[in-house]
Amino acid sequence: MKLLKDRIIRDGKIIGNTIIKVDSFLNHQLDIDLFNEMGREFKERFHNVKVSKILTVESSGIAVACIAAQYFKVPVVFAKKHEALNIDSDTFHSEVYSFTKQKSYNIRVSKKYISPEDSVLIIDDFLANGKAASGLVDIVQQAGAAVAGVGIVIEKGFQEGRTVLQQRGIRIESLAIIESIETGTIQFG
Amino acid sequence: MKLLKDRIIRDGKIIGNTIIKVDSFLNHQLDIDLFNEMGREFKERFHNVKVSKILTVESSGIAVACIAAQYFKVPVVFAKKHEALNIDSDTFHSEVYSFTKQKSYNIRVSKKYISPEDSVLIIDDFLANGKAASGLVDIVQQAGAAVAGVGIVIEKGFQEGRTVLQQRGIRIESLAIIESIETGTIQFG
Repeated sequence: MKLLKDRIIRDGKIIGNTIIKVDSFLNHQLDIDLFNEMGREFKERFHNVKVSKILTVESSGIAVACIAAQYFKVPVVFAKKHEALNIDSDTFHSEVYSFTKQKSYNIRVSKKYISPEDSVLIIDDFLANGKAASGLVDIVQQAGAAVAGVGIVIEKGFQEGRTVLQQRGIRIESLAIIESIETGTIQFG
Repeated sequence: MKLLKDRIIRDGKIIGNTIIKVDSFLNHQLDIDLFNEMGREFKERFHNVKVSKILTVESSGIAVACIAAQYFKVPVVFAKKHEALNIDSDTFHSEVYSFTKQKSYNIRVSKKYISPEDSVLIIDDFLANGKAASGLVDIVQQAGAAVAGVGIVIEKGFQEGRTVLQQRGIRIESLAIIESIETGTIQFG
């Protein structure tokens, strides 16, 4: 998606060989016009697939999922990753390892909000090692629902997320795939 | 806002005398059509006010803020309340006490994303004791920006949030004000 790639080049901050910060439009300040273009693009890519619900994980994924949901005309469910007293005890859950924080955490979704009839599109802002997306796939499968696919804003093509998901038979659509950020320049796939 | 009040009556779950759970459409599963009606209503109530940015706090506030931002045609900034390695060290911040979790936490916004020229509309899902909203007001004021107002989805009118904010001279618009949930029925203000 050219608009997104141009924006990443313009505003992304490269840190070391593996991190790109896109705080100014995707993760902290949110450019809602761009999010609408992204939502439209997700709909185009998944136009031939049944989607009854969009699933994401807090926090940054929520914004992308909500704007995209307008094009699919379906509700959003977001997995909770922080302790919350006000979640049902009866949940689907999966343990996700975070490389950034070097620890595991649980993501949880109340059993009320995904049912076997659902065809669930998973949307997230980043795909790197695929741990979060895999955890979301676990949850959909625990519910006995179908995974319609995984929609990602920025994929780090140099990490194994895509391989991990494809081995599970999941279709992935990423709006921008970064193949390399070594030597301080961004190479798209 | 009648549509919202009807939905709270239909789907809200009352717990004790002070808690109402609206997980099925506002806090865990998100009804994006309803969010659009809410966004339109916020715009109507604040149509005479300059708004250059919408500020909220993760996680549930993000969804409401993003959909509403489409009507104001401005970017969203969300305050981080969880430790994140990828936030700038140079932040505005405020300590917020959570009655639910009985502990304080810091909310933070990178100094890059609010400037003295901004007129910031604060949006959140709930107003109870006003601690989170006050923390967001602190951040806007630290930036030297103006607070355009506070827009809330559900206000607990029986708690002191409104008083706290009004004492600071802040205009509050709540789409539904619950005056009481004692005896198991919801009384709106």
